[in-house]
Amino acid sequence: MSASPYKQLEQEFKRLHALRGALSLLRWDAAVMMPRGSADIRAEQLAALETEQHALLTSPRISRLLDRAQANSQGMQDWQLANLREMRRERDHAIATPVTLISRLAKAVSRAEVCWLDARAQGRFEQFAPLLEEVVHLVRDRAALLGQALNLAPYDALVDEFSPGITTTDIDVMFKALSRRLPALIREAISVQERRPRQPLTGKFPPSKQRALIVEVMKQIGFPFDRGRLDESEHPFTEGVPGDVRVTTRIDVGDPFTGLLGALHETGHAMYDLGLPQDWRDQPVGRDRGMALEESQSLLMEMIVCRSRPFVQYVQPLLVKHFGVSGPDWDVDNIYAHLTRVRRGLVRVDADELTYPLHIMLRYELEKQLLSGELAVRDLPQAWNAGMEERLGVRPDSDARGCLQDVHWAVGSFGYFPSYALGAVIAAQLNESLRNNVPALDEQLARGEFSGLLGWLRTHVHGFGAKVPLQDLLRNATGKPLAAAAYIRYVEAKYLEPAASEAA
Amino acid sequence: MSASPYKQLEQEFKRLHALRGALSLLRWDAAVMMPRGSADIRAEQLAALETEQHALLTSPRISRLLDRAQANSQGMQDWQLANLREMRRERDHAIATPVTLISRLAKAVSRAEVCWLDARAQGRFEQFAPLLEEVVHLVRDRAALLGQALNLAPYDALVDEFSPGITTTDIDVMFKALSRRLPALIREAISVQERRPRQPLTGKFPPSKQRALIVEVMKQIGFPFDRGRLDESEHPFTEGVPGDVRVTTRIDVGDPFTGLLGALHETGHAMYDLGLPQDWRDQPVGRDRGMALEESQSLLMEMIVCRSRPFVQYVQPLLVKHFGVSGPDWDVDNIYAHLTRVRRGLVRVDADELTYPLHIMLRYELEKQLLSGELAVRDLPQAWNAGMEERLGVRPDSDARGCLQDVHWAVGSFGYFPSYALGAVIAAQLNESLRNNVPALDEQLARGEFSGLLGWLRTHVHGFGAKVPLQDLLRNATGKPLAAAAYIRYVEAKYLEPAASEAA
Repeated sequence: MSASPYKQLEQEFKRLHALRGALSLLRWDAAVMMPRGSADIRAEQLAALETEQHALLTSPRISRLLDRAQANSQGMQDWQLANLREMRRERDHAIATPVTLISRLAKAVSRAEVCWLDARAQGRFEQFAPLLEEVVHLVRDRAALLGQALNLAPYDALVDEFSPGITTTDIDVMFKALSRRLPALIREAISVQERRPRQPLTGKFPPSKQRALIVEVMKQIGFPFDRGRLDESEHPFTEGVPGDVRVTTRIDVGDPFTGLLGALHETGHAMYDLGLPQDWRDQPVGRDRGMALEESQSLLMEMIVCRSRPFVQYVQPLLVKHFGVSGPDWDVDNIYAHLTRVRRGLVRVDADELTYPLHIMLRYELEKQLLSGELAVRDLPQAWNAGMEERLGVRPDSDARGCLQDVHWAVGSFGYFPSYALGAVIAAQLNESLRNNVPALDEQLARGEFSGLLGWLRTHVHGFGAKVPLQDLLRNATGKPLAAAAYIRYVEAKYLEPAASEAA
Repeated sequence: MSASPYKQLEQEFKRLHALRGALSLLRWDAAVMMPRGSADIRAEQLAALETEQHALLTSPRISRLLDRAQANSQGMQDWQLANLREMRRERDHAIATPVTLISRLAKAVSRAEVCWLDARAQGRFEQFAPLLEEVVHLVRDRAALLGQALNLAPYDALVDEFSPGITTTDIDVMFKALSRRLPALIREAISVQERRPRQPLTGKFPPSKQRALIVEVMKQIGFPFDRGRLDESEHPFTEGVPGDVRVTTRIDVGDPFTGLLGALHETGHAMYDLGLPQDWRDQPVGRDRGMALEESQSLLMEMIVCRSRPFVQYVQPLLVKHFGVSGPDWDVDNIYAHLTRVRRGLVRVDADELTYPLHIMLRYELEKQLLSGELAVRDLPQAWNAGMEERLGVRPDSDARGCLQDVHWAVGSFGYFPSYALGAVIAAQLNESLRNNVPALDEQLARGEFSGLLGWLRTHVHGFGAKVPLQDLLRNATGKPLAAAAYIRYVEAKYLEPAASEAA
């Protein structure tokens, strides 16, 4: 007797998982190891594997098996049913865009990215505009097709790729709540902070010592170095698959926190990936539940867990040990003040957690307008600068630190930005439940003990993989639907806390 | 009008080239970067890509296109015709073995390799024997099928995979000539060498300084570090594709030559790959002309060019510069004596160029007997030890340094060993023509100038890719068919040269 349609699908998706893992390694290598001149060769390899993956996923065989498995789904277990649903989801997304459009988009994007690098270096938007225009045009077509296939509005269809189950309405409600409170809160936080004495932390921190510190902390958290690596790259990222996770960070010799916090952010991603259900590792249901939840895990780790007093209590002696620092500048209070400093800045990736959502809101609004045609590409710099002025009270001195700062649009990633803000809100919401369930968490963290944190996350978040929709997962874990309230409570408590000197 | 069948084939083989490059990178990563625990994940990824590659190459579409291109081959240029021939060759090799046999062999080999590692560590052949037996059995089936398809004797069909165009008869003639001269020559060389004063070269050579030296020499040779890397691994190897070449070596802190010469051997491979015809890089005709020619290029670089007095004259000041060595031990004569020392040893990978062919002859004889059934797997250790005694006058103290020393048979690589000896013979034959055409070569090498060497090799060897059969390439480059005579002249001149003290 031959295997059931469902079992045959599992075999096919196992191959797809292996191809995806190979692709991920090729990307990791391109950013970390590859000689600079070999980008053309790598582009061919990535394109060949992506084509193969797309062809497999959209083959008539898979469609036939999906239909037959669906027809025979009585008696299947809930994990299998969820797996079948996720298989179909992956196929539906892949098949909605014709191969010709994928290939035109791939070419436009690769031209645009090269031009963007150059335009950003020279701060010249005009030369980039026609290439971005082409990308916007193609993404608009893609969003329309995807929306048709998924029965969603075009922009919602793009969001659904990154944050399945989240709609523009969810995002709008969230951003409205944030808009209402954040501007005033930022003012108050800055005023609280101005009354705090904060000494600058300066010095030279040799990369090898920084690496040793980072590895020690990551080991303590539980990152498995026999099944993962830490390396350096221009921007921190996580690639690989559970079982071979590749984390990177960026080391700054003048600041020991850039590299450490970058690595901890990525360790948040890695621990999520490593906590995914073991038995389903090579199946769609065993994957992460999208970028919003991924980002919640990295932000929970970096912003909430590690930019906290208890974590600083744990890590301060390690700074002393690895760098030989001493004196009052390096006490817990001053380090904590350093790690939670609020500033109205121009650049998203340098933003603190309080101003960060404002950066995202601007991008969300502008990318929707670009796609709808309401905003012409040539008018982007002006709209950007006006938006920054309005939201953050700062005006870019050049497009390089303005609308050219992010690569996302150049590479066609529209609908991705909201996941950063969703991640922050979800992280805070999970954090409230976590605290209720693990009341000793802060004492644990101060001792460098992460098992309480990770145990709760495994049970309530990681272990579900993609089994349930994000909104259900959140409701199961926290008892509430997605809402900005917990985030606002969290930042109010953290950033309006009276300075140590005032409290004393 | 749609593209011609031939042009469509070029597109398909371009994809295959990209897949092959991706596979090569996955192997490189596994040996150099991958965390130890991730081997299972990588095995799945490699298997998925190999399956994909095999499916593409053996698809009905490729067969149809090959037939149609063949029927329309009038008016095609010679490079295109040669490309078509090589496409067919790759397809014929791939299609000859049924997928079920490939998969059984892959599983047997993966079990055998794990067991071999263990058996070698413990020097226990018995536990490995049944697994090797299974591999031999499956390789025998494969050789029979391949032989049938290619109209070759079974063992010749295996050799043809690694060294296309070479037959058992060619190998037998070569080995007969070597057998006649080598044993006496080794005795004479050892006696010459015993009259030479040779001081041991000892010290501590920090890895970072060794790497700096190796990089300096590789740059001087012309290795493009913007399109290639040097790393470390347990055994030196070359992976990647022209355009992104990955070379490794093994650093020994107590000996600066292990790492350097290992890297130079691999640089020989790399410079061959980099010299392949640019316009055909992603096509079968643009690939190397098999393992025998590959090995000739690494041996020409390592053994003939770099284990020579002129090269030592160039590199000696670099040893002084990088390691601060001094004194008569580190003069050119003593270093040269060190690099050309002849010893009857047990282990192939440690063998000098004079005794090396004897190691190969033994393996060649035994692997033919294993495949024909003349020698039972359980009798291998005894046959091995007797063969070593007879050929080299040494007897292994354990199977670990006897018949378990090489991985080749465990992983099913039968027919591969002869290419090492063929490489040595081809290298010497090319070297004679090279010297005739570039009379100032030694002066150039002594100045660290490699353009004369590489210019000749590009024109007469590298630039042909796989355009002509190996025997033709050799005849064009040297005016002679493959023969051991040049090798014997070369080693006689080098190893029977009177010691410096005698000559003086």
